[in-house]
Amino acid sequence: MSDLIVWTYDWVPEGPRGFVRDLRLRWACEEADLPYSVRSVSFENRGSEHLARQPFGQVPFLSDGAVELFESGAGLLHLARKSEMLMPRDPLGEAQTLQWTISALNSIEMVTVPWWFLEITGAKENGLTGWLQSRLDHIESVLKTRDWLAADRFTVADLLMADVLRVTKIRAFGDRPATEAYIKRITARPAFKKAHADQMAHFAAGDAARAQ
Amino acid sequence: MSDLIVWTYDWVPEGPRGFVRDLRLRWACEEADLPYSVRSVSFENRGSEHLARQPFGQVPFLSDGAVELFESGAGLLHLARKSEMLMPRDPLGEAQTLQWTISALNSIEMVTVPWWFLEITGAKENGLTGWLQSRLDHIESVLKTRDWLAADRFTVADLLMADVLRVTKIRAFGDRPATEAYIKRITARPAFKKAHADQMAHFAAGDAARAQ
Repeated sequence: MSDLIVWTYDWVPEGPRGFVRDLRLRWACEEADLPYSVRSVSFENRGSEHLARQPFGQVPFLSDGAVELFESGAGLLHLARKSEMLMPRDPLGEAQTLQWTISALNSIEMVTVPWWFLEITGAKENGLTGWLQSRLDHIESVLKTRDWLAADRFTVADLLMADVLRVTKIRAFGDRPATEAYIKRITARPAFKKAHADQMAHFAAGDAARAQ
Repeated sequence: MSDLIVWTYDWVPEGPRGFVRDLRLRWACEEADLPYSVRSVSFENRGSEHLARQPFGQVPFLSDGAVELFESGAGLLHLARKSEMLMPRDPLGEAQTLQWTISALNSIEMVTVPWWFLEITGAKENGLTGWLQSRLDHIESVLKTRDWLAADRFTVADLLMADVLRVTKIRAFGDRPATEAYIKRITARPAFKKAHADQMAHFAAGDAARAQ
């Protein structure tokens, strides 16, 4: 019996299915073979109880016994401390994993998510496109030279970077073969496929519950 | 003699002075009384050597003996592992510090920096303003209830969140008294003042070197 609980919504619309960030935590648990369960909070009723656990009204959050934390990036680093499979234990490997995990959040996603936000809210001209292209160019330069971001092996940094990049439709910005191959390779891992299928099934169960 | 080295540019224009992110690492070292030195890389010539150390062509990066890492957030978490002053050692306090550090990067700065980017690149209408306001509202709700983000004490999460928020001209978005008081209180700390003054002096020395 595990104390690890990944919290997500009970249901979401079709669009975000397969992309809700509980997937990152499921994926990490699957990679590291950490036993976990998944529980739901209401998508439609996010009251003060939800905001007390996640002040921005989002998901996921992660329970680990008495410890609970929000921010998928924080959850990933918390899980990485539990398993060498997610992060090496030597100082250099650990620092590289930390640096690339933060980089996925603060150098790539900091541009890709606001770019996407402007797209879906109907901006006539997306003022972040040039910046996004430049960040994708930098990542392409890095991925041209190696298979993994940190420590010459798969780490939680690859998990997160691949998840951030797969959401971005990078084909729309031109050919970036190293990045495309990287996304394809990382998301071909059985742990990703399991996490993705489980999330899809979870929200399908939410459909069934709503239909009753 | 310390092995900690904070790397920054040799010079920057007036505008970013006092805001370049080496300040975060200087500030953390000052808070934790960790001996460190500061070294420069060229602002104007960022070649392949720079990109090998920081693939996005930015600063800062942090050397710790044989370990070197970029991303100010990663540098802060690396330093936090060295000093309980920056992050408590109990599992709950550590998780809270981690969660709020990532939150500053991925829930607040993810909106504030692209918002600012659109402003300085002359967007006629800033499509991120509503989202930014909503994020500031959430933070205001949190800061109304407490003095510190994590563990009822100052941590590296406050250092980072205050730095992220002070850059944002939050007065322009209406009254948020708890957030304003928080920024004022955290940046009144002697370690911030020392780090800020040292950065200003560093770039002033860069002016002098260029004038020769």
